[in-house]
Amino acid sequence: MDCIPCMMRQIVDAARRAKADEGAQRRILTGACELLARGLNNEEMTVAVCRDLNRLVVEETSVEEPYRDIKERHIKEALTLYPRLKERVVNSPDRLLAALKTAAAGNVLDIFIDVEARVQDVEGILKQEFALCCLEEFRQQLSQSTDILILADNAGETVFDRILIEELGKKNVVYAVKDSPIANDATLRDARESGLEEVATLISAGCSTAGTLLADCSEEFRRLFSEADIVLSKGMGNYEALSESSRPIFFLLKAKCQPVADDIGVPLGKLVFARQEDIGK
Amino acid sequence: MDCIPCMMRQIVDAARRAKADEGAQRRILTGACELLARGLNNEEMTVAVCRDLNRLVVEETSVEEPYRDIKERHIKEALTLYPRLKERVVNSPDRLLAALKTAAAGNVLDIFIDVEARVQDVEGILKQEFALCCLEEFRQQLSQSTDILILADNAGETVFDRILIEELGKKNVVYAVKDSPIANDATLRDARESGLEEVATLISAGCSTAGTLLADCSEEFRRLFSEADIVLSKGMGNYEALSESSRPIFFLLKAKCQPVADDIGVPLGKLVFARQEDIGK
Repeated sequence: MDCIPCMMRQIVDAARRAKADEGAQRRILTGACELLARGLNNEEMTVAVCRDLNRLVVEETSVEEPYRDIKERHIKEALTLYPRLKERVVNSPDRLLAALKTAAAGNVLDIFIDVEARVQDVEGILKQEFALCCLEEFRQQLSQSTDILILADNAGETVFDRILIEELGKKNVVYAVKDSPIANDATLRDARESGLEEVATLISAGCSTAGTLLADCSEEFRRLFSEADIVLSKGMGNYEALSESSRPIFFLLKAKCQPVADDIGVPLGKLVFARQEDIGK
Repeated sequence: MDCIPCMMRQIVDAARRAKADEGAQRRILTGACELLARGLNNEEMTVAVCRDLNRLVVEETSVEEPYRDIKERHIKEALTLYPRLKERVVNSPDRLLAALKTAAAGNVLDIFIDVEARVQDVEGILKQEFALCCLEEFRQQLSQSTDILILADNAGETVFDRILIEELGKKNVVYAVKDSPIANDATLRDARESGLEEVATLISAGCSTAGTLLADCSEEFRRLFSEADIVLSKGMGNYEALSESSRPIFFLLKAKCQPVADDIGVPLGKLVFARQEDIGK
């Protein structure tokens, strides 16, 4: 139930950032209410409804990327943090664990949740333990794998993901981002600005939804998704879109809202590294 | 714009408190989206839309008063505070000002805003100055008036209003509450439990809207409203419903949300005691 007011809050924020005038605001909000009603009636996925809500803002304001400036700021902040975070991982007794935790903590760079949480909080988050942790399963599978597909989440967080990719060893890593801007999700431009091109093959998943909605994705992505030795999914949007998937996935995220925390079965705010079978137990 | 997600949040909270089952939740949320879209299209008043949203919850759950327990707790807490607040007013250099401030501070007892703010915060609020204050106009009109109509806001706050009524001198005070439960607004039962019967004539305004919507009110109330020497309106809901009224009104409230603070022209969180002509300047 809490998703509905939250989505409404997000669309109001997007409309304001896109500088919608009064008429556009009214049309966006009215359209948003109608889309939410339709979504509820048809039991549509949250990420699909969010996609349509964001399209409304683009249609009414012609602003393609209301969060451009925030994404750039987050990437810049994250790049400033990079050397310190990298050093921390390199000096950790378990570098892979430390890198996974860093990538999960990157999830704090979010426009909607934890608005007060800034990069200063990352250090605090890194001291947390994973509420669910499938590190040994991951380590074992990693040792037998070549092709790793990572599903990106937010811009800025991308920089944190670089640190993880650098700890995966010599693998073919494909880093999949959103096709066109949706909220603060990373696009190819954001991934490049984050320096990800140096450590992974960057691709667009083909979709422009807050979570990787397979039905919206490109043929190429779907093939990669089914053939990769390991799929590592970042963030809540991807979790929402893929948690029922039949292919094994490693989900790495911070449980930033109560509905997702409840669904996973962890307290709000915890870091999670888990497979489908570890969840909700 | 911010009113829409806020109303949605309130209706989710009401549905949860009324223990709506999954089917009822879906119907309430879908209906809420449709009502909000209609309200936006028809430029309906926020308080009218809230009334219809709350009706949805009652219809779907048969729970007439989802906030019964919270209202009772707030009244109980306020009654515990009463002696200390009363003493504070009695020992003030300007008792009327202190009583007005106490009545405005009572607005902190709200389920929706300041959820963390408990009665302990009242002392802090009492140290605030009014951001807008028409005390001298009020004092002067009071000296020439007999019939005072007070429009109540939330249950609990009612106890704080008693302190104000006791400082008005020997007047005919009519204290108007909501007809049937709407959110945590005071009803006759709440006013009686707050001890208001001892200091004022209690009436139902006839409406069941979060603000006193004249079109929904009883004939008797509308007569009182137009004939009273002074109308004192408590809280944001009444301000929203009546700020465009042609009859002079004294508005006493805490500006608890940004849209109302912006409309009045004061910073968020400030106490306000103002007439229509003082506002938005």
